[in-house]
Amino acid sequence: MSGFGLDNLPYGVFSPPAGERRIGVRLGTDVVDLSSLGGHLAATSLNPLMAAGRREWQAAREAVVAYVTAGPPLIPLRDVTLHLPFEVADYTDFYSSEQHALTVSKILRPESPGLSPQWKHLPIGYHGRSATVVVSGTPIQRPSGQTAAGVFGPSQRLDVEAEVGFVVGVPGRRIATADFAEHVFGVTLVNDWSARDLQAWEYRPLGPFLAKSFATSVSPWIVPLDALATVPAVAQDPEPLGYLRPPGPGYDLRLTVEWNDTLVSRPPFASMYWTAAQQLAHLTSNGASVRTGDLYASGTVSGPDRDQAGSFLELTWNGAEPVKLADGSLRGFLADGDRVRIGGTARSAAGTEISLGSVSGTVVP
Amino acid sequence: MSGFGLDNLPYGVFSPPAGERRIGVRLGTDVVDLSSLGGHLAATSLNPLMAAGRREWQAAREAVVAYVTAGPPLIPLRDVTLHLPFEVADYTDFYSSEQHALTVSKILRPESPGLSPQWKHLPIGYHGRSATVVVSGTPIQRPSGQTAAGVFGPSQRLDVEAEVGFVVGVPGRRIATADFAEHVFGVTLVNDWSARDLQAWEYRPLGPFLAKSFATSVSPWIVPLDALATVPAVAQDPEPLGYLRPPGPGYDLRLTVEWNDTLVSRPPFASMYWTAAQQLAHLTSNGASVRTGDLYASGTVSGPDRDQAGSFLELTWNGAEPVKLADGSLRGFLADGDRVRIGGTARSAAGTEISLGSVSGTVVP
Repeated sequence: MSGFGLDNLPYGVFSPPAGERRIGVRLGTDVVDLSSLGGHLAATSLNPLMAAGRREWQAAREAVVAYVTAGPPLIPLRDVTLHLPFEVADYTDFYSSEQHALTVSKILRPESPGLSPQWKHLPIGYHGRSATVVVSGTPIQRPSGQTAAGVFGPSQRLDVEAEVGFVVGVPGRRIATADFAEHVFGVTLVNDWSARDLQAWEYRPLGPFLAKSFATSVSPWIVPLDALATVPAVAQDPEPLGYLRPPGPGYDLRLTVEWNDTLVSRPPFASMYWTAAQQLAHLTSNGASVRTGDLYASGTVSGPDRDQAGSFLELTWNGAEPVKLADGSLRGFLADGDRVRIGGTARSAAGTEISLGSVSGTVVP
Repeated sequence: MSGFGLDNLPYGVFSPPAGERRIGVRLGTDVVDLSSLGGHLAATSLNPLMAAGRREWQAAREAVVAYVTAGPPLIPLRDVTLHLPFEVADYTDFYSSEQHALTVSKILRPESPGLSPQWKHLPIGYHGRSATVVVSGTPIQRPSGQTAAGVFGPSQRLDVEAEVGFVVGVPGRRIATADFAEHVFGVTLVNDWSARDLQAWEYRPLGPFLAKSFATSVSPWIVPLDALATVPAVAQDPEPLGYLRPPGPGYDLRLTVEWNDTLVSRPPFASMYWTAAQQLAHLTSNGASVRTGDLYASGTVSGPDRDQAGSFLELTWNGAEPVKLADGSLRGFLADGDRVRIGGTARSAAGTEISLGSVSGTVVP
């Protein structure tokens, strides 16, 4: 099975050769054009549907299932161009894998490894650059920057971060964890490209800036939240404050990271400490608003084992322990021409195995 | 003189009672409706004009001067509603006052005061939340948040940051400092409200997040860059790297901070270490793009004297040395009901003194 059956039907925006943008769903290795269904599905981005709210999302999904079941024309994926499926409002990135935070602290701050004092009290996050969120397949130009006093040049420690992104449909502020599914339209795979050498030099005291602002890639497919089965969230100790309770659902998403077609890692999303519902509640707990098109990412997904690392920083221990790819070459960080593909599968609400699609990018000089 | 004569003519977006949004310029205590001039001036936000480029900006300004000189209808400011004059794309905030950075380090990190190692090598910055950029006059609801393990509630150290914002018109990447004026449309006053108690608990290692994401106020008026006289930038030692040279122009903007109508500070923008041209060059040096509507702020403007502080953190030494307001009351940080007004004046390209308008906000519970 392709993982793209009736139990999945992720939304995207595509254009046929010489045609206009339209909304479609993926079915197997084809796209089904939804524009004839009218309403929000006749738009050129997902934003109007995303803004319409959960009841409309459910009605649209029922209509789409009926339409797809009736045997519509199928357009082979290879014949279309896939676009960024929504207009990104604010982009926020979290840091919610305990294993990732711990390992990074050991690598980068060996003199004082460990989680920062607030780590288990709130989901740490920061704002990123929405202008540079790009769709899967967009070439990633190696960023330049300062890495020490007087040193400027192409990054020598270009890395990936395998993450899961949550796309906000319905605006709000002070959103309770219990209202998560009323606001979040769906999930997408994210690669938050990171230049570790720029980051190390620039990040104190205001956090990462140019180390991450050059590109963030997302899958062209948004899997509706209602398509996914939920699992219990990870147990949290200490118990979080009231505005972070109940934790909301966990999701058993299994990611894969391929480096030049060599499978190097299998990050397990189910191991994330903070849930997406807690991230949204925290993000809006101060009174800040979210809008239709906000994208917030989970933070790098890393499991306890080396081959579950969501970044090459962790996978190669900051380049000190290179990995061997299928062609026999060794890698610490990304070389020009390297291609990274982050894929994922999930258990659907129907109990089947479905695909989250993938997000790919090739590094160019 | 009001500071709003023919040598200024800042752009804004207003609506008359029961009328639609339109573009206007401020003349004295009135607004001149520009919609009859057509073209980009007939839009409902400044974005189309901002995107059109410097030649169009200059042509529009000539047309506006001619129109205003001919004696158009004047609409009293008190009869109109002023709006956010452009659609904010990405919002970025810098940290480019040496005096501010030094004083903050002494207050918050007394065990190791001083600039961080990269401070004089690059203009440190971070991304903020564009959804919560609001126009002057919008009430500022006191944010809530965590301030220590297990503690959540309204911020007890609500502060301001007096800044100057630069509004990007023409998109670009890797923008040379010499091309600054081809990309930046104009300047506006900014108050980057900050919850110091939230910030202290959350900011390591990824920087400020909820401490600043709840609200950023901007003046309703954008002063065209071409209206301002330039001055030599501050001397920099060590000499910056090539992509940050030449430094580009300085601007002799003199800010004022009024706390409940008591003038408490006069931050001097001319003392900023990094220029706006260097900030834009740095922001795009890694390959990241800026778009029409990007807003980047200077960072808190603070001079060497206590009464030149651009934040109350500095002015009251983190609350330890309260200031006395005109009504005799003492303040460390903002109380509910407090009103802050940041104003500014500048030397115009014509050699006269002009006003930058003001950005105000009142704290509500």
